[in-house]
Amino acid sequence: MGRTADGKWSDEWTPPVFSVDANGKVIGYVNDRTPNNWGRWGELDEKGTANLLTPERVAAAARLIETGKVVSCAIPLDSTGPVHPTRTGVVHLYGYTGSDFVAGTKAGQDYPNFQGTDDYIFMPLQGSTQWDGLSHFFYKDTMFNGFWIGNVESYAGARRGSIHQMKDTLVGRGVLLDLPKFKGVDRLQPQYGITPDDLDACAEAQGVTVGEGDMLVIRTGHVPWYYQLEDKMEYWKVGAPGITRAVVDWLAEKDVASLAMDNIAVEVEPHEEPFEHVYPLHARLIRDLGLTLGEVWWLEDLSATCAELGRYEFFLSAPPLNVTNASGSPANPVAVF
Amino acid sequence: MGRTADGKWSDEWTPPVFSVDANGKVIGYVNDRTPNNWGRWGELDEKGTANLLTPERVAAAARLIETGKVVSCAIPLDSTGPVHPTRTGVVHLYGYTGSDFVAGTKAGQDYPNFQGTDDYIFMPLQGSTQWDGLSHFFYKDTMFNGFWIGNVESYAGARRGSIHQMKDTLVGRGVLLDLPKFKGVDRLQPQYGITPDDLDACAEAQGVTVGEGDMLVIRTGHVPWYYQLEDKMEYWKVGAPGITRAVVDWLAEKDVASLAMDNIAVEVEPHEEPFEHVYPLHARLIRDLGLTLGEVWWLEDLSATCAELGRYEFFLSAPPLNVTNASGSPANPVAVF
Amino acid sequence: MGRTADGKWSDEWTPPVFSVDANGKVIGYVNDRTPNNWGRWGELDEKGTANLLTPERVAAAARLIETGKVVSCAIPLDSTGPVHPTRTGVVHLYGYTGSDFVAGTKAGQDYPNFQGTDDYIFMPLQGSTQWDGLSHFFYKDTMFNGFWIGNVESYAGARRGSIHQMKDTLVGRGVLLDLPKFKGVDRLQPQYGITPDDLDACAEAQGVTVGEGDMLVIRTGHVPWYYQLEDKMEYWKVGAPGITRAVVDWLAEKDVASLAMDNIAVEVEPHEEPFEHVYPLHARLIRDLGLTLGEVWWLEDLSATCAELGRYEFFLSAPPLNVTNASGSPANPVAVF
Amino acid sequence: MGRTADGKWSDEWTPPVFSVDANGKVIGYVNDRTPNNWGRWGELDEKGTANLLTPERVAAAARLIETGKVVSCAIPLDSTGPVHPTRTGVVHLYGYTGSDFVAGTKAGQDYPNFQGTDDYIFMPLQGSTQWDGLSHFFYKDTMFNGFWIGNVESYAGARRGSIHQMKDTLVGRGVLLDLPKFKGVDRLQPQYGITPDDLDACAEAQGVTVGEGDMLVIRTGHVPWYYQLEDKMEYWKVGAPGITRAVVDWLAEKDVASLAMDNIAVEVEPHEEPFEHVYPLHARLIRDLGLTLGEVWWLEDLSATCAELGRYEFFLSAPPLNVTNASGSPANPVAVF
Repeated sequence: MGRTADGKWSDEWTPPVFSVDANGKVIGYVNDRTPNNWGRWGELDEKGTANLLTPERVAAAARLIETGKVVSCAIPLDSTGPVHPTRTGVVHLYGYTGSDFVAGTKAGQDYPNFQGTDDYIFMPLQGSTQWDGLSHFFYKDTMFNGFWIGNVESYAGARRGSIHQMKDTLVGRGVLLDLPKFKGVDRLQPQYGITPDDLDACAEAQGVTVGEGDMLVIRTGHVPWYYQLEDKMEYWKVGAPGITRAVVDWLAEKDVASLAMDNIAVEVEPHEEPFEHVYPLHARLIRDLGLTLGEVWWLEDLSATCAELGRYEFFLSAPPLNVTNASGSPANPVAVF
Repeated sequence: MGRTADGKWSDEWTPPVFSVDANGKVIGYVNDRTPNNWGRWGELDEKGTANLLTPERVAAAARLIETGKVVSCAIPLDSTGPVHPTRTGVVHLYGYTGSDFVAGTKAGQDYPNFQGTDDYIFMPLQGSTQWDGLSHFFYKDTMFNGFWIGNVESYAGARRGSIHQMKDTLVGRGVLLDLPKFKGVDRLQPQYGITPDDLDACAEAQGVTVGEGDMLVIRTGHVPWYYQLEDKMEYWKVGAPGITRAVVDWLAEKDVASLAMDNIAVEVEPHEEPFEHVYPLHARLIRDLGLTLGEVWWLEDLSATCAELGRYEFFLSAPPLNVTNASGSPANPVAVF
Repeated sequence: MGRTADGKWSDEWTPPVFSVDANGKVIGYVNDRTPNNWGRWGELDEKGTANLLTPERVAAAARLIETGKVVSCAIPLDSTGPVHPTRTGVVHLYGYTGSDFVAGTKAGQDYPNFQGTDDYIFMPLQGSTQWDGLSHFFYKDTMFNGFWIGNVESYAGARRGSIHQMKDTLVGRGVLLDLPKFKGVDRLQPQYGITPDDLDACAEAQGVTVGEGDMLVIRTGHVPWYYQLEDKMEYWKVGAPGITRAVVDWLAEKDVASLAMDNIAVEVEPHEEPFEHVYPLHARLIRDLGLTLGEVWWLEDLSATCAELGRYEFFLSAPPLNVTNASGSPANPVAVF
Repeated sequence: MGRTADGKWSDEWTPPVFSVDANGKVIGYVNDRTPNNWGRWGELDEKGTANLLTPERVAAAARLIETGKVVSCAIPLDSTGPVHPTRTGVVHLYGYTGSDFVAGTKAGQDYPNFQGTDDYIFMPLQGSTQWDGLSHFFYKDTMFNGFWIGNVESYAGARRGSIHQMKDTLVGRGVLLDLPKFKGVDRLQPQYGITPDDLDACAEAQGVTVGEGDMLVIRTGHVPWYYQLEDKMEYWKVGAPGITRAVVDWLAEKDVASLAMDNIAVEVEPHEEPFEHVYPLHARLIRDLGLTLGEVWWLEDLSATCAELGRYEFFLSAPPLNVTNASGSPANPVAVF
């Protein structure tokens, strides 16, 4: 019912020994893991690698737009999509409907001659095509840049590392690495661990380079498979294709601005052993690098368009919703060719 | 507890006399109101004026990007923003927090060494910066293009006119008409009715033309005023600045692709007399023209950037969330300069 | 995308041929199914068999209280319980927590020295131990007593047959028929169809009679089994023990005031052939008899207490929540001995 | 963004100096405030004064039932009722409606011949007629009986002091003190502070005694006034009638099992000066005494029945919902005469 001083679960509770300064940073904590981007954009930065999406790069990315074709990378936002089992599903409900007016609703009494509809949604902010914010994953009581985990609380939300810090960004040059197409398969198998070599070879075959400040998109075909499965439970039992630990270093070297994929959690499942905790690469990517992760993207249309046009780079506009003090956000990322 | 055959509220219920075909269209119904775009893009079209956002126009709009500066047009998506009183507010709640891990959460017992957060949102789909879908407003038992209102039901949602039909669009050339700046005021007064002359004069002063297929954005300063008010209730009592009936014709003539504003409901409140029902221009714009409306946008930063750069046209990327069979969607529209 | 005049699904929509009067009743409709209680308590009655819970019977039931022992019949209202797959699960979230105050919440800044918690729930009204209201199940466009189904709409809810009509009732003499105990088994097997003979023999063995105006409770052991299952999906695939069609007549003869069970939907699954539609007995019981059904009750503690005290009758207090215009309600029914 | 070691808000965070044992209790903390019931029912008790509702008292209370009349003490659970401004309102939405079947819903295609409805609720657990659980209010990092506030977290909820601990109780002898009737007024005025003398005189006039283990109900008329107000905002500005600090001692002396009222927060508003924090008596009653508080009850019908029958004692059945690890619960308390 508590924790040890250094943060492990315990029946008892012993207070941490550190203090936190007025900026919300753990005093004296040094992140000795590599690679990491702590301090790179200032001690109080809350944007991480999204800082790499400079106006210059956005302007350059815009010059990739030739045909004007727009392609959405979002799954249908409804109850049929894959939602991580630790979350509840998406619920879309109506406040009043057209059918109400067919039957004669009290709304027609309250507002004579009016006819219309209104609807509501209840959902996990990470329950559909989404961005993980920098306040989503921690390690050793700290989030990206050394902010204390206690900055995220129920009442005020994520006072540090909120996704709304990205409201004017996550727009830039998108690059798709289409692994199934490269490998000549429909989809990567569950448990397949993507390596740096896979990514380099795919990029070369596609004639594209992954560069500094790019918004990298990696296709696995794993999310589409969910929709084909008869027994959806199987999806959560068999593991998932995803990146391996070595790709963390590769991403840091390439210095990408963001990474989005069409699986559930970016990283390979089961996790490579040994691992520190569940989803170990989340802590490496989000907390150490400050890399915003896109998950559950829909890349089938993007894949078809890239193949058709013979190019794997495009303008990508994928800002999150401006949700205040939130740990993630649904999005409808659009690629423009 | 019902309706008359022609759709008026009544204590009794008498069935309508029309039938509906397998496409969901009311058989024999002719829309005799003008202007209207029914049939213009085919009998089964569900996109309306968004059809004007052709790839060619998107490509042309992209050439407006010079500096790469990205400006969000979304209010903070939280409980502090203005929500129409017929709706409930935005509720953002956490499934688990950083503070939980400070206190020692059962999550730490279930997942050793894990630390992270996860959050939920419950909101009206039109409860923040938003797009009204074509299934949001009706008149005489029909929505845009003659589809029957009965196509929108609680169980399956908006089987016609859903916002998800726009998932690959609402990207194009944005034009801002900054009325307060033009008039030298902080904001338009409540009840001020915007006329075609206002818009023409403002455009001329700004050196910009509103053209076919543009995504028009009109600034009033009304949403920012909400945040300054001590007594928020006043906001809903004093009316709102907004467009007048004559602007409907003006918009149809200009043939814009969409209209977005920083007020609550686009149109002037109180409504111009005589009017058919509450929000009469909604039916004219959404139902007759098939024009998708953006409401509760945040245009202060956009205004400042336009003034600073001395131009009022930009690339606007504002796709809705891909919510299946929904009548509207929150969005984070970004202007790129 | 519609229905035939007599209510069957169709791609097209043809209006019904009937009209509805100012009381919300379908004009001219006669229920020719038996047994039925339409009109028995007046043409506008919305309480059905709960009318049998007269003050006299409540007073008599109170005289059953001897020891003062109180036994709850509710499952834990949380995300671990069985929820019918057509519904979403129970979501319990905190607005602010004790852990927030450990970490130092903004609530502590807003309200100096204050410490406390506050929580929210999102749930199907029939997503835990529950009562089905009389507006929950229909047949041939009518609900109990001939009210039109159109009386239940999204905007105003169940304007007829709402559960709140029962706010001052569902209190009376409870009788438990403990079938597993009677049969010497842990629980009835899925697909087991309970017959009138089962019920009569069980009552006789237990030395209790089921009388007019009783709140009948039948134990199957099916809900407890859910908690033991490794693979919860199995629960929804193998069927359920429940009452057969013949029990409808038996219940009507006995003239009980309500029926509650510890399965999901009272009736045996798969349904006995031939059947009119899914959950055919729901229409027989709720719509024809006006019998309020209790589902997903927890009867293990009640069973143990009855066995221990050697009696199967008790005072049962099980009012629904006073949810306005609702089709059902969670409840915490308590038996007092 | 944190707290001092002793729990005050601070920009910085300094860990508390105490530890917590495996039972969740703060080691070494002694509650020196009086009156308090800490330890009275054992060191690990989580029921507080509800322990006074012994079977013997329940059995004795049952003997008060003579006529069998049942009276609900719940306001309508809907969006029209008073909800404390720190909470959001009640939202009741339908998954599918009767009107859907009038228009022809996809549910009719999925389930041939089926017609029915299903609904959802989103609400603060304390957003209607309610019980405050023992985990709702704290002081100096502890809740009732010395449990640490860190036991209440977002992920697992209230691991100590949950309302579900009361699932088999809050049934007993109810006593109504009808202050407006006694004083010959419609309702107590906002800011009126109820004193022990008020309560003693009212009890005497009504010919009733408040005894050990009673479920005390005090009527003010304040909740009904909310429904009459044109401007609902006024309700939250003018204060409320409620009990004063001296009544805390009176309640402890009388040794009541619970206290329920028809105001928002039991205690007088504005609070008597000096006070430790907002709602100071909540900490005195819930945290020190372990007294479960009922708020926003509807006592008009109860008042009328008591007056009509000439007696102010009755059997009161008011168990909370069995919400797991929750800080409060809606209820439909019923008085039986």
